Amino acid sequence: LTRRVEFSDTDMAGIVHYSNFFRYLESAEHAFFRAIGFSIFPRPGDPPVGWPRVHAECDFHQPLRFEDEVEIHLVVSARKARSISYLFRFRKLGAPQSQDIARGSITVVCVSHHRGKMKAVRIPKPIADQIQVAPRKLLDSFKPRRR
Amino acid sequence: LTRRVEFSDTDMAGIVHYSNFFRYLESAEHAFFRAIGFSIFPRPGDPPVGWPRVHAECDFHQPLRFEDEVEIHLVVSARKARSISYLFRFRKLGAPQSQDIARGSITVVCVSHHRGKMKAVRIPKPIADQIQVAPRKLLDSFKPRRR
Amino acid sequence: LTRRVEFSDTDMAGIVHYSNFFRYLESAEHAFFRAIGFSIFPRPGDPPVGWPRVHAECDFHQPLRFEDEVEIHLVVSARKARSISYLFRFRKLGAPQSQDIARGSITVVCVSHHRGKMKAVRIPKPIADQIQVAPRKLLDSFKPRRR
Amino acid sequence: LTRRVEFSDTDMAGIVHYSNFFRYLESAEHAFFRAIGFSIFPRPGDPPVGWPRVHAECDFHQPLRFEDEVEIHLVVSARKARSISYLFRFRKLGAPQSQDIARGSITVVCVSHHRGKMKAVRIPKPIADQIQVAPRKLLDSFKPRRR
Repeated sequence: LTRRVEFSDTDMAGIVHYSNFFRYLESAEHAFFRAIGFSIFPRPGDPPVGWPRVHAECDFHQPLRFEDEVEIHLVVSARKARSISYLFRFRKLGAPQSQDIARGSITVVCVSHHRGKMKAVRIPKPIADQIQVAPRKLLDSFKPRRR
Repeated sequence: LTRRVEFSDTDMAGIVHYSNFFRYLESAEHAFFRAIGFSIFPRPGDPPVGWPRVHAECDFHQPLRFEDEVEIHLVVSARKARSISYLFRFRKLGAPQSQDIARGSITVVCVSHHRGKMKAVRIPKPIADQIQVAPRKLLDSFKPRRR
Repeated sequence: LTRRVEFSDTDMAGIVHYSNFFRYLESAEHAFFRAIGFSIFPRPGDPPVGWPRVHAECDFHQPLRFEDEVEIHLVVSARKARSISYLFRFRKLGAPQSQDIARGSITVVCVSHHRGKMKAVRIPKPIADQIQVAPRKLLDSFKPRRR
Repeated sequence: LTRRVEFSDTDMAGIVHYSNFFRYLESAEHAFFRAIGFSIFPRPGDPPVGWPRVHAECDFHQPLRFEDEVEIHLVVSARKARSISYLFRFRKLGAPQSQDIARGSITVVCVSHHRGKMKAVRIPKPIADQIQVAPRKLLDSFKPRRR
């Protein structure tokens, strides 16, 4: 996913507010779902499941600024019976492969809704069949750099 | 309603992003609904109606900055069969009555949902009975100052 | 400007939160500034002025939903010595010209900063020269439909 | 810090969007800075430093909903020469101590600005003197529960 930083994404420090990286990476997740033929929010005919986040994290290496164009790369790092984990890299458009702005990860759980309560369920087969864990070498290039 | 400006409400110009005034004034509307015993989003037992906005506007006189405390005052300017209009004033805590940061207004329509479509309906009596248009003199003090 | 509605732009009513229309239309304004060779936030070499909003309003005709693609059209409705007014129309991608989601307007003032205070100033000539009020017939098609 | 969930903090899944937990926990950090006599964004007379985030994470245990009141508890888990780490717990007002909504952490670096670049610097003594790492037992009660 490529997007341009908007004015309303910045804060008074003159850079993108850190909470917006979590909005940006989620947009890449949703684009991934569209790419495999589904929507993160079920449309009529889709398996009636939701995908709440149970974990999210991000390391921030460089600031992003207004009108920067940023690429958000996504790989699947784990696919379990009831959850998926993704890794993300943020890079300014055109910057070298080795330099990135931020790296993040989220784990989402597949749930169905029953009487207003969410319950973890197995990922429906049509969706699970489309999702493959990335090869180790690729995963390694997405791992957090520090700590 | 009184609230303190948060860092994430500011933008790179160092002031509260104008779209957040619309979030702030809506919070005052929702506090008003709580004060009359309802919620803007129906709880079990509440009349099953929603309140989409059909019009919103705001005049901005002075900037708001990080950690400013702001009072948001609300009056009802019209109550029709299917809609309510509100006027708002924003004032820094402790500033003179005559100085304000911004003045705004919204008009909301009472709707029910039917097969995924919203339809304007009469405001349920228990809610309508609690809502009274403010006296003219008070309304005048909320009118936009310019234009 | 064309953009796709993101999950984080929606609220619990299942539609785009009304405050986000003001973020969307601002993005169209900023794209317009880029198109005429400037940035809404001055870069080195640009005239050192800012553009705070003094008025903003929007009429909402139809809801926008997750993953809808929306076109935001902008015209200049007034260019005074120290301010610019814009009109906006929101339309779902591919929908007929006559149907729109929302119509809005903003007025922005050209300011310079002096010791932390903003002061209205004349629009710098290189910028003013690029900005032209739209013909009346076009403007009329952007005017609010109701009230 | 105690706050009430606002309508604009929710998403179409009917719960608080996960990115807003990062806005909420930051507000607790900023309240902590006010409590020790400083502001996260330096006022005249304050040491001229900023506090960009280099890491942020959160585990989500239970959803938060519109009008829930939530307490955000903060402890300092590390204070190094140039950085501070915080742990956070989110709990619904009045819920038992043992049940929480979410747990998070951030690490912030002390920076000064030089010609538009940020550079990590030692935490100014007047600020560092006010900040103490919490006792181990308290820290343990803030550690992530899962993984």
